[in-house]
Amino acid sequence: MFESFAKYLLEKGEFAQSELDLIKSVSVLKRVRKNQYLLEEGQISNFSGFVVKGSFRLFRVGEDGQEHIMKFAIENWWISDYTSFMSGQPSNCYIEALENSEVIWFAKDKWDYLINTIPNFKQMIEKLTARNFEAHQNRIYSNISESGELRYENFVAAYPTLYNRVPLYMIASFLGLTRETLSRIRKQMSKKRPAITQHLL
Amino acid sequence: MFESFAKYLLEKGEFAQSELDLIKSVSVLKRVRKNQYLLEEGQISNFSGFVVKGSFRLFRVGEDGQEHIMKFAIENWWISDYTSFMSGQPSNCYIEALENSEVIWFAKDKWDYLINTIPNFKQMIEKLTARNFEAHQNRIYSNISESGELRYENFVAAYPTLYNRVPLYMIASFLGLTRETLSRIRKQMSKKRPAITQHLL
Repeated sequence: MFESFAKYLLEKGEFAQSELDLIKSVSVLKRVRKNQYLLEEGQISNFSGFVVKGSFRLFRVGEDGQEHIMKFAIENWWISDYTSFMSGQPSNCYIEALENSEVIWFAKDKWDYLINTIPNFKQMIEKLTARNFEAHQNRIYSNISESGELRYENFVAAYPTLYNRVPLYMIASFLGLTRETLSRIRKQMSKKRPAITQHLL
Repeated sequence: MFESFAKYLLEKGEFAQSELDLIKSVSVLKRVRKNQYLLEEGQISNFSGFVVKGSFRLFRVGEDGQEHIMKFAIENWWISDYTSFMSGQPSNCYIEALENSEVIWFAKDKWDYLINTIPNFKQMIEKLTARNFEAHQNRIYSNISESGELRYENFVAAYPTLYNRVPLYMIASFLGLTRETLSRIRKQMSKKRPAITQHLL
């Protein structure tokens, strides 16, 4: 399991074998069953996880009891509530496995140790943080500027491996659309461009 | 001008006079006239600015030529395109002064120097980054989960000193609403709770 993470690391930066060994020594492989939670509201998200296999969703529950999906994560993505991770404050999110999954799991203190010990790890995390920031900006821009149809089209284009592994109502939640609106959008799109929606209909 | 920034710093952490002097020595006071740009699309946002006086908006221009406001900044807020600032890549945003303004301006290299030289400055910036991240998360959550009416109510509650300094169409843009929708929301609210909208109507 660690091998696929080592491959990912070597794509992102230069790491000596001793550094990979150190990273491995402080990591934990977690197997998480479908519908199991990695994090629940009120807990501190004191870990950073790298998804080796499977998929997760990070969501908040609104005052009306509705679930609102903030993020998905599949293989080679990171998962945590990074707001809680950075602040040390309790999370207002849940992280749930959508499939039987495997995660390379780092406790916060081990994570900080790696950042302080391995310069290339620090550099990689800084780049990831910048990209995360950019992704947030882009999502805010998409939310305030784009139609539901365009948001869905961009979602399919950006996450081709994700959108057919996730139930439609979760995609609607992620995009801030009602299930009915997304169904209508998909029907309209399937008339115009059947290829985009065929394997989800 | 630097005095109000020094006051802000001392509220955020402990700084010796020599550290405040160092921070001051690498900062630049910029006066920016209304409608003047601090940043234009295609430029690298190689600065971080602290607003001493006035107000700014950070916006993107969509393919349709529409402006979409990502952020406002008033006194005691920071302004930059932090995506471009962190990545060193050209920005896809504009930053424009909405009023005659004054900014304590740090070039990126000076900023990095302060972070590497003054531990409390580094700590303050880490906290600010975490709060920025949290604000993004909250805005995404708001966009995907809340009605236009609730988004506007929360905006007014969160930014009481901002919302009566900014034209209505910019608030609509920031909230991802059309001007017409926001006008309708405000009319409905003024019937229910006159106090919230009185000084903007």
